[in-house]
Amino acid sequence: MSDLPTFADVVAAAGRLQGHAHATPVLRSATLDARLGAEVFFKCENFQRMGAFKFRGAFNALSRFDAAQRRAGVIAFSSGNHAQAVALSARLLGLPALILMPQDAPQAKIAATRGYGAEVVLFDRFQQDREQLGRTLAAERGMTLIPPFDHPDVVAGQGTVAKELFEQTGALDDLFVCMGGGGLLSGCALSARALSPGCRVIGVEPEAGNDGQQSFRSGSIVRIPTPRTIADGAQTQALSPLTFGIIRRDVQDILTATDAQLVECMRFFAERMKLVVEPTGCLALAGALHGGLDLRGRRVGVVISGGNVDLQHYGRLLAEGV
Amino acid sequence: MSDLPTFADVVAAAGRLQGHAHATPVLRSATLDARLGAEVFFKCENFQRMGAFKFRGAFNALSRFDAAQRRAGVIAFSSGNHAQAVALSARLLGLPALILMPQDAPQAKIAATRGYGAEVVLFDRFQQDREQLGRTLAAERGMTLIPPFDHPDVVAGQGTVAKELFEQTGALDDLFVCMGGGGLLSGCALSARALSPGCRVIGVEPEAGNDGQQSFRSGSIVRIPTPRTIADGAQTQALSPLTFGIIRRDVQDILTATDAQLVECMRFFAERMKLVVEPTGCLALAGALHGGLDLRGRRVGVVISGGNVDLQHYGRLLAEGV
Repeated sequence: MSDLPTFADVVAAAGRLQGHAHATPVLRSATLDARLGAEVFFKCENFQRMGAFKFRGAFNALSRFDAAQRRAGVIAFSSGNHAQAVALSARLLGLPALILMPQDAPQAKIAATRGYGAEVVLFDRFQQDREQLGRTLAAERGMTLIPPFDHPDVVAGQGTVAKELFEQTGALDDLFVCMGGGGLLSGCALSARALSPGCRVIGVEPEAGNDGQQSFRSGSIVRIPTPRTIADGAQTQALSPLTFGIIRRDVQDILTATDAQLVECMRFFAERMKLVVEPTGCLALAGALHGGLDLRGRRVGVVISGGNVDLQHYGRLLAEGV
Repeated sequence: MSDLPTFADVVAAAGRLQGHAHATPVLRSATLDARLGAEVFFKCENFQRMGAFKFRGAFNALSRFDAAQRRAGVIAFSSGNHAQAVALSARLLGLPALILMPQDAPQAKIAATRGYGAEVVLFDRFQQDREQLGRTLAAERGMTLIPPFDHPDVVAGQGTVAKELFEQTGALDDLFVCMGGGGLLSGCALSARALSPGCRVIGVEPEAGNDGQQSFRSGSIVRIPTPRTIADGAQTQALSPLTFGIIRRDVQDILTATDAQLVECMRFFAERMKLVVEPTGCLALAGALHGGLDLRGRRVGVVISGGNVDLQHYGRLLAEGV
């Protein structure tokens, strides 16, 4: 595991992101502090560029391209925040981007990705093999594939979220992090280990997609069918050896949250904190509230991973629930 | 008009609010700046204590009570943010509060006001005269009535919104302010006149309730029936001599916004800025977007007055519109 990224890589990523990523604010809620008997610090990556932490990893990875890679450009598969993160980063760095998206992805997301100047290629999820199509296109055009989490530069970029948080708050007792493929969690764990060594780092994933928890407990990567959950940014089937390697070493526990708990948290963010948070972005708070850990008297970090929502869906969840 | 509050009163209010009110953040939107060709600075009073700027005026007014007033306490009529502002301020200052609310006010608002420790007295809007009832209760108990806008200490407190904004942004070319009874607008105009003398100050009220615009244009206070609008914080029937006195002197124009424009702005805040803003809080942006003023090349302040929403109503507006 000597090839895992380190905190030094996170520090280097922070240098590359300087002046490009937003230093997002840390917000508090007196109501929540009273309810938990704790001091809770929310790291608001919903205010990050393109609305989610994903910008950090994508921009860091693209910043490291050599001249030939820059000329040929980047390719990514995603129907979510990674697509927009790669598209925006490519535009800022002046290199071509091709994003493969399922043809049934929301029109708003396709339009947003094109709006950042990326070429979007649509594929049929039921008829075409995304990986095969991506490899073919990448080979034809000489483009570099940047995956959403299984890449050391992506992990190092995401780790700047927790680095920045610890610089804003000082040491913490607990850090709750939203978890899909584990890019954000593993990167944040690198920063916690270096900057706040006594801090418990806890990943939170959807109950319906608890491959991470199963992997963590069994000691080897467990693969599951694509889970059904409103946390659409955490519908991954398996961790990668890279993220799992860091998580099993530097993370203390993995909890799960139900969709109903995510909606409860989404409503709390809207009603009490005036924040729009996407379902996936509610995972960490749901784990802090419902994970059964006693947080009394503790200083607790909670990462809000993003705020990109479809207004029809979001409005219905606020008004009617799941 | 020598009895109108001055900027010196705003400065004194800021001193009283120090350590009690939040210094709210100023947020930007690259999307909006590109659309308007301007630099827009949003003053986010939706992050103020109890969720709206009203805390500033109420806390300032209650801070000036003498010993006898403190013992007897405060009385207010409101079904909205002023109720919670007075209740919270009274709790923080340790004095009794009685809030008169219509018995058909949302249960959540009644509960929130009681949650701040206030005594809530419900009345029948159709059978009872609120003013008469308030005066009777105030006289019986020796309580001091604090109205939502028609009071120099309330106006001075609200003026700290713009004072803080100018301190954060420097001089501005335009300042758009949400307007109901004119407390926020007149207070902000005092600060603009002192801190950014060339700044145009523009009030924005609901199209259905344009008493302020009619008054401004005719030169005397016009009273209208209670308007029907989703901007429930701006359903006032008339300005007061106090607020009108400042507005006619220090405000350059009054614009109006339709409910459909308010919903468009509410959606923009949620989708692009990840902010929950109540309909009334969208007035200023609606005026900047649709008021017909050319803002190209200008530095523009926009006050977001509050973010207190009923989630069912808010969710339906996001999903379905008006």
